[in-house]
Amino acid sequence: MRILGIDPGLRTLGWGVIESRSGRLSHVANGLCKSQAADPLALRLLSLSRQIADVIAEFAPDEAAIEQTFVNKDGVATLKLGQARGVALLTLAQGGLPVGEYAPNRVKKTVVGVGHAAKEQVLHMVRLQLPGCDPAGPDAADALAIAICHAYYGGTEGGMRLREVRA
Amino acid sequence: MRILGIDPGLRTLGWGVIESRSGRLSHVANGLCKSQAADPLALRLLSLSRQIADVIAEFAPDEAAIEQTFVNKDGVATLKLGQARGVALLTLAQGGLPVGEYAPNRVKKTVVGVGHAAKEQVLHMVRLQLPGCDPAGPDAADALAIAICHAYYGGTEGGMRLREVRA
Repeated sequence: MRILGIDPGLRTLGWGVIESRSGRLSHVANGLCKSQAADPLALRLLSLSRQIADVIAEFAPDEAAIEQTFVNKDGVATLKLGQARGVALLTLAQGGLPVGEYAPNRVKKTVVGVGHAAKEQVLHMVRLQLPGCDPAGPDAADALAIAICHAYYGGTEGGMRLREVRA
Repeated sequence: MRILGIDPGLRTLGWGVIESRSGRLSHVANGLCKSQAADPLALRLLSLSRQIADVIAEFAPDEAAIEQTFVNKDGVATLKLGQARGVALLTLAQGGLPVGEYAPNRVKKTVVGVGHAAKEQVLHMVRLQLPGCDPAGPDAADALAIAICHAYYGGTEGGMRLREVRA
């Protein structure tokens, strides 16, 4: 099974594709989708969506996974992240992919062994578990970690519901 | 020129289409797009997007307008609204529509004359300015008010930029 992991963001959105066969994981590809802060919001979201759709078309994942967004006290940042996350979710659904959602702590606990891990630790463990991969940045490493989490916990309620509806 | 106004929301999203000819406004249609709270988020967003795309296909607007989201202290609500708003913006952009964004106070000031107006006042003035219209609910009345605002202030920077990029 091929899994696309997404770490949502409006300016930089990380993505990573892994292959899971009989419990063995391997790296396929990873990268960053970017949008220009100077552009109108509708254009930024359209650009992000097209870049995600290109990744889906090129690497043909079977399922997708995305991080549950951390709500902080900065309402403007939460709104920006929410808009980017909504667009990522919609683009995955438009591509016909079942989507699993995972809390950041669960992703870290799966990949690193503890719920509160530094970015460097996540990067280190992603490299260990996916030999030969070279993440394009911290957001791409996070996206690969989310895909790894889905490989272990896949078949979430949300994913199964989506498949039922599509059937 | 035909204008589609959107009042974003995850559970209920209002829409309204008006026609603006030589400064005269007329009502075309309005309604609500809904998503089921029990469904997975990706499915809810996909459903909203399809309903908006159906409205665009049926009424063929030339431009669109959407309300700028009010960021409140409830981070979870802001996140939900942000995701719905991102999906609405993306669907409008995917439909090739230039999108104007307007602050709630500006919409109310345009339609009612003051920045802080009650829902009932907005509904009353929308009915006055669009004879014969019967909004499907407060969210649909707000969407018509946003379309009216765009009829007066259209050609926003965002809209013009979008048209330049598409040319």
